[in-house]
Amino acid sequence: MEQTPLRTIAFAVYPGLTLLDLAGPLQVCSALEQLAPGFRTVVLGERVEPVDTDTPLAVVPSHTFDEVPEPFVLVVPGGLEPTLKALADERLLARLRKAADGAHLVGSVCTGSLLLGAAGLLEGRRATTHWWYRDLLTRFGATPVAQRWVEDGRYVTAAGVSAGIDMALQLVARVAGEELAREIQLLIEYDPEPPFGPIDWPAVDADHYRPRSQQALASALADHPELLARLTS
Amino acid sequence: MEQTPLRTIAFAVYPGLTLLDLAGPLQVCSALEQLAPGFRTVVLGERVEPVDTDTPLAVVPSHTFDEVPEPFVLVVPGGLEPTLKALADERLLARLRKAADGAHLVGSVCTGSLLLGAAGLLEGRRATTHWWYRDLLTRFGATPVAQRWVEDGRYVTAAGVSAGIDMALQLVARVAGEELAREIQLLIEYDPEPPFGPIDWPAVDADHYRPRSQQALASALADHPELLARLTS
Repeated sequence: MEQTPLRTIAFAVYPGLTLLDLAGPLQVCSALEQLAPGFRTVVLGERVEPVDTDTPLAVVPSHTFDEVPEPFVLVVPGGLEPTLKALADERLLARLRKAADGAHLVGSVCTGSLLLGAAGLLEGRRATTHWWYRDLLTRFGATPVAQRWVEDGRYVTAAGVSAGIDMALQLVARVAGEELAREIQLLIEYDPEPPFGPIDWPAVDADHYRPRSQQALASALADHPELLARLTS
Repeated sequence: MEQTPLRTIAFAVYPGLTLLDLAGPLQVCSALEQLAPGFRTVVLGERVEPVDTDTPLAVVPSHTFDEVPEPFVLVVPGGLEPTLKALADERLLARLRKAADGAHLVGSVCTGSLLLGAAGLLEGRRATTHWWYRDLLTRFGATPVAQRWVEDGRYVTAAGVSAGIDMALQLVARVAGEELAREIQLLIEYDPEPPFGPIDWPAVDADHYRPRSQQALASALADHPELLARLTS
């Protein structure tokens, strides 16, 4: 019998998150569970009940936070308004702080890194998030970096939404080796061909999107004027 | 008031599907719903109840098949053994046939195209699927093509798992224009950087995986020897 304790990769779920932030890295890590003995993947929520996402699909976690208090890896997905609102959710932040505390690696996708920041976990670290909110990282004592994913010690933060897939492959390489990460890439056929090519960043009109991103932040934190002021002043 | 009827993009859900096959294109199409008036996205299942996926996450459809009998676009995700098993699920195949019948576009991800094939919808068409099962398409009268996605008339079939994101962006471009597709790509930050580069297809040892893919097929269709024989003889 295998005596090695299971190394648990845990994904945190909360209402309104962006589905692909969760599903991309979860698919990658579930494949690891199937290929490599000793790993298991779980999805943690307050309760094992349906949770809304930012799509018409609701999702059901596999376990509660209480059931898996000390994961080997923690991954925190992001989202738009509901995630920004969760920056003031002390219960969720305490959950993340506790789960991250003993974790070997902590990953985030998109604005999930803002939750890590609000939980006080990114102080003095290099990190990234969705391009709309990259500058906000400074308000949590982090140094924003415009990369697909950023590694700083045991923290691996990814850029927006789809970047979670790249981050998760890197995360698998760190905990189980590059060969397994490459095999998973092959099995999920991750050989991207965006129909209109890569994003042309120099051509992106960031000013055009700023009112929308600031409006989402203001609306999400309308009941928390002090936090909003701290993030926008 | 807007008088144009809503154009509904419907995703089909069934037990055991691959989460990312669903979540990738669903994220893309949900963004379209938010950006362009006149579109709505739904997820269809037999019942509005939790459905298992090939990850620890269960998902809850937004509607039943009966509630949305004539979608504008139908998208069918794939999976491994449960999807192969569903090749013999006449009730599901009838659902897909009916929903596809009046659809403007029909998309599939991964082995979702095998379901379309089993439903008799790909005869005489060029199509693709997960690389493990590409040759199976011939058994449904289709011509397999090794591309990220394949368009043949109103059918758009994607390669394995993650290819659904690329396919969905192309699908959005077809129904709503390239500009919106590019905007969605920017919002979900789909600017992939696989950590170990693209898949090196010439170096892939397909023979190594064949026993596994054939075993999955044999196990999935153990109760349907005639169909299994038709697919493997």
